[in-house]
Amino acid sequence: MVKVVLIGSGNLAQHLIVAFQKAEKSGNAIQLLQVYARSADTLSHLLPAEKITSSFDTLQNADVYIIAVSDNAIATVASQLPFENKLVVHTSGAMPMDALDVKNRRGVFYPLQTFTKNKKVAFDGIPICLETEQMEDLNILEALAKTISKKGITIHPEQRKALHVAAVFVNNFTNHLYQIGETICKEHQVPFDILHPLIEETAAKIKNISPSEAQTGPAIRKDSKTIAAHQALLNDPTQKQLYTILTQSIQDNVKKL
Amino acid sequence: MVKVVLIGSGNLAQHLIVAFQKAEKSGNAIQLLQVYARSADTLSHLLPAEKITSSFDTLQNADVYIIAVSDNAIATVASQLPFENKLVVHTSGAMPMDALDVKNRRGVFYPLQTFTKNKKVAFDGIPICLETEQMEDLNILEALAKTISKKGITIHPEQRKALHVAAVFVNNFTNHLYQIGETICKEHQVPFDILHPLIEETAAKIKNISPSEAQTGPAIRKDSKTIAAHQALLNDPTQKQLYTILTQSIQDNVKKL
Ligand SMILES: NC(=O)c1ccc[n+]([C@@H]2O[C@H](COP(=O)([O-])OP(=O)(O)OC[C@H]3O[C@@H](n4cnc5c(N)ncnc54)[C@H](OP(=O)(O)O)[C@@H]3O)[C@@H](O)[C@H]2O)c1
Ligand SMILES: NC(=O)c1ccc[n+]([C@@H]2O[C@H](COP(=O)([O-])OP(=O)(O)OC[C@H]3O[C@@H](n4cnc5c(N)ncnc54)[C@H](OP(=O)(O)O)[C@@H]3O)[C@@H](O)[C@H]2O)c1
Repeated sequence: MVKVVLIGSGNLAQHLIVAFQKAEKSGNAIQLLQVYARSADTLSHLLPAEKITSSFDTLQNADVYIIAVSDNAIATVASQLPFENKLVVHTSGAMPMDALDVKNRRGVFYPLQTFTKNKKVAFDGIPICLETEQMEDLNILEALAKTISKKGITIHPEQRKALHVAAVFVNNFTNHLYQIGETICKEHQVPFDILHPLIEETAAKIKNISPSEAQTGPAIRKDSKTIAAHQALLNDPTQKQLYTILTQSIQDNVKKL
Repeated sequence: MVKVVLIGSGNLAQHLIVAFQKAEKSGNAIQLLQVYARSADTLSHLLPAEKITSSFDTLQNADVYIIAVSDNAIATVASQLPFENKLVVHTSGAMPMDALDVKNRRGVFYPLQTFTKNKKVAFDGIPICLETEQMEDLNILEALAKTISKKGITIHPEQRKALHVAAVFVNNFTNHLYQIGETICKEHQVPFDILHPLIEETAAKIKNISPSEAQTGPAIRKDSKTIAAHQALLNDPTQKQLYTILTQSIQDNVKKL
């Protein structure tokens, strides 16, 4: 049985609360003892009052303390914890493990997914990247990950960094391309949802074939007529620039393969 | 009953054959009379020999002739057709309607989706963009689209062009970002499939919230520390450049909203 105290009340914290509660109900070996929130109200729709605290001094004795607060607040929060030599982890893809105060045993519990308020996500298939200083602590995190997901994965710090950069490309930057698509649609009075099936299929495809095999379009066909027509249609200089560089990058990439 | 002759044996043509046959079997008002293929073999797994021809001279009398060949072959094929004043359409998002020979009544039947060989796609939800010179022909294309999809959409030439550019951003360019993600993973010995759930959720999200609301990550948070760390991790100059420009574009965009 892994006893957990969670610190934070934002996007990820709220998704973790739901996932841990579900795991508890299914009889998995986890117990969510308590959640810290700067203002208890934020969590009153998810937890009974006695499980929420707004003071670090009243934190209960747990096997793992999960700090799920904004990246730039992790160090402050970790140093405020009024205990030592316990397992304290953060949930960030970007922050090094040593953002955490050295007075505790440190680790990382990073769920590789994008969480939005009011949008349910099945934790089941989400890879949770695990890192610890000490081997025994890894066992605790693995046991914990297993209660909510099939995919607890031990990775090295360098790998987590790389994964986070890769995640920025396939998530943040991809979403920005969706946004450019939406802008172009709006400018031409076409409803953006016409593109939803295409977006979905583009994402689904790479589960079966690799992105390099899946690449299609004017860039890889070197269809310079279409490329020129597209360039002419774009008004926004940044969109034009992105079109040029992405086209070039697709073409360069073929040479490398 | 819409009688169809299909010309082409590539990716899209094969998906259309499957979709039309399914529609016929379900009793929808469509009949696939014949398919033209330069080499009949290409289609022998899909059609009985008597339905395949490799000569334009033996094309049967149909309500619509669909030319689903490579963009740069559309004009050649259209001019080779040995008849006049019939409804002839192409299936391209990029080509103007007048790539087709003026001797026939012209139109466009453009399914806004990405098709890959050996990967089934449900036509049902695919928007089919329709354009014709004459109003009556639009009725024929609408009736035809309805037999395979719920989403026959009449659009103007300028809108189709814009949609095609938007499709390049959300499909071709997005797929390229997936590929960069894969490359970064490989370089750091992380299996790319760890990113699949993230890719899927990123695509699913924008069905409920707009891409601008869905935007997260270091760029929009103006988290310059993380951005610098990511830049330092990237070795490839094109990846670095893309990271910079996409980050800038996300930040500029916030100002515009
Ligand atoms: N969202 C995701 O998709 C995702 C995915 C994987 C990992 N993560 C990681 O999860 C962590 C939390 O991210 P999030 O998306 O949940 O962020 P968020 O929704 O913005 O929530 C941030 C949380 O941090 C708290 N906080 C901020 N400064 C604090 C301070 N000085 N002291 C105490 N609490 C403070 C906030 O409390 P108030 O509500 O009181 O302001 C809030 O509960 C980050 O490390 C992030 O990198 C997020
Ligand atoms: N694939 C998609 O995702 C997609 C989506 C929407 C629209 N489209 C449009 O659909 C059309 C076909 O694309 P596709 O992806 O199916 O292409 P594809 O898989 O590359 O197939 C091209 C087809 O064109 C034929 N062809 C090429 N040159 C020809 C010529 N001179 N005479 C006769 N036939 C010729 C090829 O015949 P051989 O097999 O004998 O070489 C082949 O059947 C294009 O206009 C494309 O823009 C495609």
